[in-house]
Amino acid sequence: MSVPHPSPRLSIGLVGFGAFGRLIARHLAPYATLTIHDPYLPAGRVPAEPTAVAGDLRSVAACPVVILATPVASLAEVVQALAPHLRPGTLVVDVGSVKAGPAAILRAGLPAEIEILATHPLFGPQSAGNGAGHGLRGLKIAVCPIRGRRPLRAAAFLRRGLGLDVILTTPEAHDRAMASVQGLTHLIAKVLVAMEPLPTRMTTRSFDLLMQAVDMVRHDAPDVFHAIERANPHAAEVRQRFFALAQQLDAALSAETLDAGPDPLAS
Amino acid sequence: MSVPHPSPRLSIGLVGFGAFGRLIARHLAPYATLTIHDPYLPAGRVPAEPTAVAGDLRSVAACPVVILATPVASLAEVVQALAPHLRPGTLVVDVGSVKAGPAAILRAGLPAEIEILATHPLFGPQSAGNGAGHGLRGLKIAVCPIRGRRPLRAAAFLRRGLGLDVILTTPEAHDRAMASVQGLTHLIAKVLVAMEPLPTRMTTRSFDLLMQAVDMVRHDAPDVFHAIERANPHAAEVRQRFFALAQQLDAALSAETLDAGPDPLAS
Repeated sequence: MSVPHPSPRLSIGLVGFGAFGRLIARHLAPYATLTIHDPYLPAGRVPAEPTAVAGDLRSVAACPVVILATPVASLAEVVQALAPHLRPGTLVVDVGSVKAGPAAILRAGLPAEIEILATHPLFGPQSAGNGAGHGLRGLKIAVCPIRGRRPLRAAAFLRRGLGLDVILTTPEAHDRAMASVQGLTHLIAKVLVAMEPLPTRMTTRSFDLLMQAVDMVRHDAPDVFHAIERANPHAAEVRQRFFALAQQLDAALSAETLDAGPDPLAS
Repeated sequence: MSVPHPSPRLSIGLVGFGAFGRLIARHLAPYATLTIHDPYLPAGRVPAEPTAVAGDLRSVAACPVVILATPVASLAEVVQALAPHLRPGTLVVDVGSVKAGPAAILRAGLPAEIEILATHPLFGPQSAGNGAGHGLRGLKIAVCPIRGRRPLRAAAFLRRGLGLDVILTTPEAHDRAMASVQGLTHLIAKVLVAMEPLPTRMTTRSFDLLMQAVDMVRHDAPDVFHAIERANPHAAEVRQRFFALAQQLDAALSAETLDAGPDPLAS
């Protein structure tokens, strides 16, 4: 097989088997033996993943690579429970929608000899394909190496092994960008969903694109929305700017005469 | 040539040679001889349309089909100037972004023996291809027959000749749908453009779709925005609903604790 991977049948531990944990398991199964821990997953065989094994936190911690796919809000608790069982040199990876808070939690909560890679795959089950080992090609992932040398090797695997578009960044730069990217998308989607039913037949191409964007995030778990809007330290500022500009536009449109005046938001 | 058209080298008059007028001219040129009137177009040959001729309002009015591609705000004035020169049985077609107001203007301003078709092509220069005679296939057009029998024949030509997806509707139903479809798209686009620069590299697929929607309308003429937000009688209501829900969401997000609570906009 010509696809490069970090080592033959690497052993990877995965904490969390929600929508994103399942996506990770499906795409890593061709490269690694997975041990998965999730409070809702009984020990033994894992549904839909014949090569994976469900186990306790201790058995996951014994793997040389441990991926945390838990909600951002419970990361601190998971790290605290996991830390005593990790072996020196283990690489711990998170996949949350914000990075500054989680990176700080990982740095503070894990012993100095544990290596850390903070990531944010910029896609979800809606945009990734369903095939095992492919379907991720060209999708973007933000990657912040936090501690140690293994994070850079892992980033190389994400690029060359999985074909991901790896964007090397810092937790701070990531959170600033995502406050706009995800903050605005989810905000707009939330409001549009609340306005439904909206037209589906008599539509423009631009409205169709808008609703395609809505459809990609409308089934996201509530904790994803909250991670994006609450756990991101810049989200409130972006939100307030959006609402202020929207109000300004509303006021301009209410005040104007029917004549086409100058652009109400032009600077 | 096997493509059906209403009659060989039909003569069509076109009032208005803005972005949309040019689009119409390009796509009708293979089927008809065009006479175009626009205050900014000197008489004689028409740039980029070798088979079209520029002329005064009287020469346009002499054509058996007259298409009005002027801003909605100046429609009444154009109708008043045109009406005395039209021949009985002429079909007058408009292409504005709202339909109830223009349909009323056409009905009141044109003699009873003039037939009327109110249309709204649900696409613009951004979504239509550039090739002559093709590139419109599958695009949507809302069609409201207002007076006479020729509007239905014209609708059949739009469907079979140009390959458009013809949506037969009423001015009232059209304006209700478009208040959401175009009103929301342009409102959101206006606010997002005012927030630029926004990230372009570290983005999600849903955000990319959102910005594709923005890109399709960001260069629309100011009178398009004003027609959509001001001339549509339902636009203000949709806008107010959008702003009210946005404020409600903002308040919920500001008030909540960091724990993931219930969906703030769920009913």
